[in-house]
Amino acid sequence: MSDLASIGMERGMLYETILTTRNPDGKPNAAPIGVICKDMDEVVVYLHEGSRTVKNIKKEGEFVVNILKDPLIFVESTLGNPPADNFAEYKDNFYIKTTEAFFKAKVNHLRDVERKDQFGVSRTTIVRAGVEEIVKKKDQVEPLNRAIYGIIEALVYLTRMDLVSGDTERLYHHRIREISRIVNKVGGPEHKKAMKRVLEAFSEYSLE
Amino acid sequence: MSDLASIGMERGMLYETILTTRNPDGKPNAAPIGVICKDMDEVVVYLHEGSRTVKNIKKEGEFVVNILKDPLIFVESTLGNPPADNFAEYKDNFYIKTTEAFFKAKVNHLRDVERKDQFGVSRTTIVRAGVEEIVKKKDQVEPLNRAIYGIIEALVYLTRMDLVSGDTERLYHHRIREISRIVNKVGGPEHKKAMKRVLEAFSEYSLE
Repeated sequence: MSDLASIGMERGMLYETILTTRNPDGKPNAAPIGVICKDMDEVVVYLHEGSRTVKNIKKEGEFVVNILKDPLIFVESTLGNPPADNFAEYKDNFYIKTTEAFFKAKVNHLRDVERKDQFGVSRTTIVRAGVEEIVKKKDQVEPLNRAIYGIIEALVYLTRMDLVSGDTERLYHHRIREISRIVNKVGGPEHKKAMKRVLEAFSEYSLE
Repeated sequence: MSDLASIGMERGMLYETILTTRNPDGKPNAAPIGVICKDMDEVVVYLHEGSRTVKNIKKEGEFVVNILKDPLIFVESTLGNPPADNFAEYKDNFYIKTTEAFFKAKVNHLRDVERKDQFGVSRTTIVRAGVEEIVKKKDQVEPLNRAIYGIIEALVYLTRMDLVSGDTERLYHHRIREISRIVNKVGGPEHKKAMKRVLEAFSEYSLE
């Protein structure tokens, strides 16, 4: 079974996951990476140049995607690498012990590009990979998607707009634009439709 | 069965839900409300004075808590009330059709208080209610909690700290404080521990 629907993924949406790979010395590496569900058997990831993850994937041609919501794993894999006892092995691959599910992804296509964003130009590797094997540690899995959280945060600001002014008001406008960007990047059609309605309601509070 | 663990709730955590109540004219009302899992058979909610929800709860002595992630329901119940065809009836109570689960809560204790927050003094009604009946529309239910989202957002800022300065840097510091406040309000012990580590890492980037 290699259908991403079995772990709650929907085509076109981006999920917050932990990628596990093997370092040249054979030890496990973990990194927090957004994974786009391109199709029910294919994912796309954008990786920063120079990262351990991209080097390992270029060398091994595969990686493991962990679906979990364990806050400490996200923190530890961002600040460095989680302690070794957080990893387990499955057929020569590493996964995170507390994961709800994981799957092996095999690289189909890999491309280095230059990307320009709000922080300048950076080199990024775009990886397209096929879903090889899905292992569920839990019956029903819900992958982490940020869209609904963004909408709820935006609604909190909306209900406070009559109470704020000055710097706080400008901050809310800034956050709403940022949230809208995220929801449209990671969300599905219903999230985008909901965000559009929030923006319409927000536009009644235009800044001077 | 009236144990909140059956719908994935943990003691001490706050979940984003939709409360449904009955208006005096018999029509359904929906509002987005944070519900604290006080114990496995008891919840606490804080309601703004003057809201339709608090009036209905004072009159009826009960309400329904809907566990769902439907973005349009959150938007519509914030901006006004969802159209009537979004509601269904169960034993004289209303629930939201797209909900993953719902339960009836019976008021045990109700108290009007004055609360002071960043926006000034407001009157709030604190309701303590017993969980009477849980109905699951899905085998495994995951209620909406904002803690992991906050931690992931904070980690995004942390990885960008070397790239930003001036207004953006100040904005990130502001957001981190706000996220920390939310995570400590809504999260569990693991979320708070993770947030503490993020704050420690963040403190290396002190503002001038």
